[in-house]
Amino acid sequence: MHPDTAVPAGGTLSIVGIGPGHRDHATPTAVQAIAEAELVVGYSTYIKLVRDLIAGKEVFRTGMTEEIGRARFAVERARSGAKVAVISSGDAGVYGMASLIFQVLEESGWREGQSPQVRLLPGMTALDSCGSLLGAPLGHDFCAISLSDLLTPWPVIVRRIEAAAAADFVIGLYNPASGRRTRQIVETQAIIRRHRTGTTPVGLVKSAYRRQQRVVLTDLDTFLEYEIGMNTTVIIGSSQTYVFEGRMVTPRGYTNKYAWSGAAREGQRPGHSLVVDNERTAREVG
Amino acid sequence: MHPDTAVPAGGTLSIVGIGPGHRDHATPTAVQAIAEAELVVGYSTYIKLVRDLIAGKEVFRTGMTEEIGRARFAVERARSGAKVAVISSGDAGVYGMASLIFQVLEESGWREGQSPQVRLLPGMTALDSCGSLLGAPLGHDFCAISLSDLLTPWPVIVRRIEAAAAADFVIGLYNPASGRRTRQIVETQAIIRRHRTGTTPVGLVKSAYRRQQRVVLTDLDTFLEYEIGMNTTVIIGSSQTYVFEGRMVTPRGYTNKYAWSGAAREGQRPGHSLVVDNERTAREVG
Repeated sequence: MHPDTAVPAGGTLSIVGIGPGHRDHATPTAVQAIAEAELVVGYSTYIKLVRDLIAGKEVFRTGMTEEIGRARFAVERARSGAKVAVISSGDAGVYGMASLIFQVLEESGWREGQSPQVRLLPGMTALDSCGSLLGAPLGHDFCAISLSDLLTPWPVIVRRIEAAAAADFVIGLYNPASGRRTRQIVETQAIIRRHRTGTTPVGLVKSAYRRQQRVVLTDLDTFLEYEIGMNTTVIIGSSQTYVFEGRMVTPRGYTNKYAWSGAAREGQRPGHSLVVDNERTAREVG
Repeated sequence: MHPDTAVPAGGTLSIVGIGPGHRDHATPTAVQAIAEAELVVGYSTYIKLVRDLIAGKEVFRTGMTEEIGRARFAVERARSGAKVAVISSGDAGVYGMASLIFQVLEESGWREGQSPQVRLLPGMTALDSCGSLLGAPLGHDFCAISLSDLLTPWPVIVRRIEAAAAADFVIGLYNPASGRRTRQIVETQAIIRRHRTGTTPVGLVKSAYRRQQRVVLTDLDTFLEYEIGMNTTVIIGSSQTYVFEGRMVTPRGYTNKYAWSGAAREGQRPGHSLVVDNERTAREVG
């Protein structure tokens, strides 16, 4: 295709994040985009999650590692005038199909204003859904790192793990392991362990809000003893994260500044920068 | 309150993320939890976002910096048997009320199995909703950093900015500035600029999916010229992020391994680690 090709009107390409998979956690906009589509494109597992929405529609489903083929098929059909929904679990923008779709649109010569109209419908990413099953692990600064080195050089990933560990981010790991790919999570544990204590809380969530859901709350020294696979998200606490009644909690820092009465501590002012007293070793500072 | 206090049955405390604020992007579970509550607790701005759901209900709304008072009120009423929904915009677990609620529960002596039953209802965090308005900026590893130093020492925040910039994360900034707090975003720009070129794409999204929504796509050297306030989320691209037809795109890395035909490049195998050719300087590597 070339930019000057005559373009049929009316194609739409909706890139849809369906959230964790259960309808109760999908947005109305995402559900509507799927319902309105003529063609639904997705990884087989995700197509199953929306099967009640796609009766009577054309469906294009392929396996893992066939993302380019899915993206090209979706773009070609949408350019030709079809109403297409490309679905990802979680948020399609987060390690999902959205950026690949834009690359394929670029490759095809598409320009804004041509068919298709491109719509991005955000969803809840795995960090949000999995975090809610663990408690409140994302209460302060966090990062997301994919451990898959199928498309990214492993040294680049290692550099990010090292930086995140050293700067005390809560760390969410996507794609931690697969049947063939098991070395990365072991190396990741070793890197982070050099910066954090072995009792740092670690949460493992498999298939959040799906029938196969499994939630484990453990720690940095022992989490490798549990099953970790393609559908597991791993959340590793910061130095401030602790466990309370079976929940991971990463404080925002309120007790650095306030007493439980709500009154500001001595020397602190609401609405002003935290004044750090070097002799104080409150749990939350840092 | 003490752990051995007799506890009335039936209290529920739902910690609810309502997403960006427009109903079309809230989950059915979040909406239902608010609808079922007798008492709705939240920051005034968020209460306004759900006003059509709260007719006839008791509402407890307070201003910014009064989070401890809100949390304590919600916990006390829920312990006493009320059905309470505490709402945050985005995901209540991400810089929201969830972790503070657990701290207040702990302070109150609550134990699992007592009233209230605590439920966490995840929502879409600002990175997801704002990202979708910018394109696909979160297609690869990213982190979230709050620039508010009201509760966190500024040196801790600086260390995270520095680490994220050096390790080439896409960086999402929450709470970048407020009327009084304007220095932090300037310092952040300077730190990141030492690691990335001035043309690195930067997106600014104010009030995503609300009436006041404003989206700006600019770059690292010039983004400080735009209005940045309490309701702005700033997304700074990695070295790989580029702009295509008004969208920020951070590639996942498919073209490192595959041709657009979908065939693996020479020396690469689907399902196996990326083989890095040091002489190749493909845009996506890194």
